[in-house]
Amino acid sequence: MQLNPDWVVGFVDGEGCFFVGIQRNPTVKIGFQVIPEFRVVQHKRDLDVLYALKTFFGFGRVCQNHDDRWEYRVRRLDQLREVGVFFQSHRLKTKKRVDFQRFRDVLTMMEEGRHLTKEGLREIAKIATLMNTGNRPRLAALMDEDRVQSDVKAPEETERNSLSGKFRPARME
Amino acid sequence: MQLNPDWVVGFVDGEGCFFVGIQRNPTVKIGFQVIPEFRVVQHKRDLDVLYALKTFFGFGRVCQNHDDRWEYRVRRLDQLREVGVFFQSHRLKTKKRVDFQRFRDVLTMMEEGRHLTKEGLREIAKIATLMNTGNRPRLAALMDEDRVQSDVKAPEETERNSLSGKFRPARME
Repeated sequence: MQLNPDWVVGFVDGEGCFFVGIQRNPTVKIGFQVIPEFRVVQHKRDLDVLYALKTFFGFGRVCQNHDDRWEYRVRRLDQLREVGVFFQSHRLKTKKRVDFQRFRDVLTMMEEGRHLTKEGLREIAKIATLMNTGNRPRLAALMDEDRVQSDVKAPEETERNSLSGKFRPARME
Repeated sequence: MQLNPDWVVGFVDGEGCFFVGIQRNPTVKIGFQVIPEFRVVQHKRDLDVLYALKTFFGFGRVCQNHDDRWEYRVRRLDQLREVGVFFQSHRLKTKKRVDFQRFRDVLTMMEEGRHLTKEGLREIAKIATLMNTGNRPRLAALMDEDRVQSDVKAPEETERNSLSGKFRPARME
């Protein structure tokens, strides 16, 4: 299945997700890891479309999301930068492009190493709370406190889904 | 906002719905009315995209679906035929194209007046149960019985949503 760039934009306007996960990680100095992700989730009946997206972009992974849901996803920074270049020149039509813009801001901050500083991390968390649902109160609370270092314990305070090991933001609808 | 045909296909692959509603209607001889509908639902923040779809196709309505959800919809048979011609020459990539094909079959049957016969109506109901969720048991039960005439009472047996007066099929996901 060969995909046309405009089709990809329309499909991502409908089904795509630009997401910034922030996850506790005691092995990094600041105690948190920023994981930006571009993702398209589909029912397994449309696995071939996910693989076609992978072929279209030339990178990324197709893997199970949960149950009958599968996803095409990109997490590597250099590849996300390429995704960013594509959607910069092929403009999204829905308000998802606001999320995309915020996503690109986070990528830029990460390229500048700002996710490794307390201040930068807080700023990224603030941007992340505005994305997708515009409502990620746990993340906001977490980042507002003075815990942005390494006293890390409670996994339920992270944005990580403990069952699947995957981020599962509420869909933007 | 100007839309490109391929973008429209991608967006409809993600967000579009081809739906066949069957509704009790004592004013028609056979007791039931077939209402095929092409619909794209979005949060109100993307109303401008729905209006752009209306401009793109050159017909249809933009109206409230429920709460913050709005829809672009087409119900007129001649206009649905044009929608059919468009997606025939601009092929959907996801399995939604199977629903689309069934939808076109129903349109053809209606053009032949078969929805006005007991046998034709049953056949349309059978096709409708396969669409969208593949699971509309009430409709199947309704059509299997010998009630496909005019002894019409219970509104809860129809596929019509009694609150909004709109069809609300489960989304195909």
